[in-house]
Amino acid sequence: MSTTLPARTPEPPYYAVIFTSLRTEGDHGYGRTADRMVELAGQQPGFLGIESARDPGGLGITVSYWESEDAIRAWREQAEHRVAQEAGKRLWYEDFQLRVARVERAHGKRPNPTA
Amino acid sequence: MSTTLPARTPEPPYYAVIFTSLRTEGDHGYGRTADRMVELAGQQPGFLGIESARDPGGLGITVSYWESEDAIRAWREQAEHRVAQEAGKRLWYEDFQLRVARVERAHGKRPNPTA
Repeated sequence: MSTTLPARTPEPPYYAVIFTSLRTEGDHGYGRTADRMVELAGQQPGFLGIESARDPGGLGITVSYWESEDAIRAWREQAEHRVAQEAGKRLWYEDFQLRVARVERAHGKRPNPTA
Repeated sequence: MSTTLPARTPEPPYYAVIFTSLRTEGDHGYGRTADRMVELAGQQPGFLGIESARDPGGLGITVSYWESEDAIRAWREQAEHRVAQEAGKRLWYEDFQLRVARVERAHGKRPNPTA
């Protein structure tokens, strides 16, 4: 799973889930599930955007943006996502860190749409 | 510039700078400066860690972690870093977003060191 542009998020405050991971060897269904999770996340209430990058054979970082902590909680508890989280711990990730953060301010080369 | 492991950060709260970027074509001194900035950031007071990944030919995400907003401010104003920021806007980045966020909670596959 990869994204091609910085996410166009509204004016802060909003929330970010920073997921940093190191993959195990082999796919084991990872690619298909990752694509499906991006699709599903985009259908969740309060979803604002997602950014993802992975160095070839190295660290991956996915940041998803959300309107509120409640929206993040609902996404974490979503049934299909929970199954994927379990498979992630068991099969796909050698190591990971997940951080929930409140975005306080933001700027960019191109202006973001007004909230 | 790339990192190979999720950063080992202390217990929240702490701060994250999420820098998402799309590179222009060609190097134009980018690689050397990026390595130097990681080295310099690591010498700044309040620096906690850094994670970075770039898809081949695509989006890059660098997340640096800091003890406080003051530490982030001091790093932003650091003289050599300011020169790099200007070159970034002018030469290296087709597009970018920079977000400052307060990390509220974190967990991982491997336990972090206690703060």
